[in-house]
Amino acid sequence: MSTVIKKDEVLLENIGEGVTRKVLTYSDNIMLVEICFETNSIGALHSHPHEQCTYVLSGKFEFTIKGERHIVEKGDSIYFSTNDEHGTLCLEKGVLVDVFTPKRDDFLK
Amino acid sequence: MSTVIKKDEVLLENIGEGVTRKVLTYSDNIMLVEICFETNSIGALHSHPHEQCTYVLSGKFEFTIKGERHIVEKGDSIYFSTNDEHGTLCLEKGVLVDVFTPKRDDFLK
Repeated sequence: MSTVIKKDEVLLENIGEGVTRKVLTYSDNIMLVEICFETNSIGALHSHPHEQCTYVLSGKFEFTIKGERHIVEKGDSIYFSTNDEHGTLCLEKGVLVDVFTPKRDDFLK
Repeated sequence: MSTVIKKDEVLLENIGEGVTRKVLTYSDNIMLVEICFETNSIGALHSHPHEQCTYVLSGKFEFTIKGERHIVEKGDSIYFSTNDEHGTLCLEKGVLVDVFTPKRDDFLK
């Protein structure tokens, strides 16, 4: 069923030093997540079987993907293949919109 | 293969009066799209078999989903089920991030 989620209806989770996450709309097949980073905060290297797209809503980030570094800013985007190891260092405070297929069940516990 | 797309590397398409679209990163299973709306511009009612999530990056929009109206603003999000008819009227100039599973082949022609 189609669903509208207002920004204040969702739980803001503190998931690390300077990093907060909101799981927004999702179904079994797709999940939209907003993640806020303070300057110098880190999304540690990790991998998962889900495919992922990331949209940089604001700020500046250094991503490491399979050992290669990429600087991204507002309006840039990234596609992550299944199981490709990736992580990020926030160079300037900002927000990422991450989307996954299928949904991240580990985010719903 | 994981891919980084800089905002200026992608085609800006004019898809209607006051509406422009950028198809950003995608694979067969997921597609990230940025759509800019001028005030009073319209995304006409339509439906598609793809599941969709929409994130409101900025502005204010009135969505119609299966005949029901919903006002959404920055940080709000919507999940659209397969084939649910939807459209939008932009109340205040803004940007939507739309994500689809699977990808929209009709956007790649």
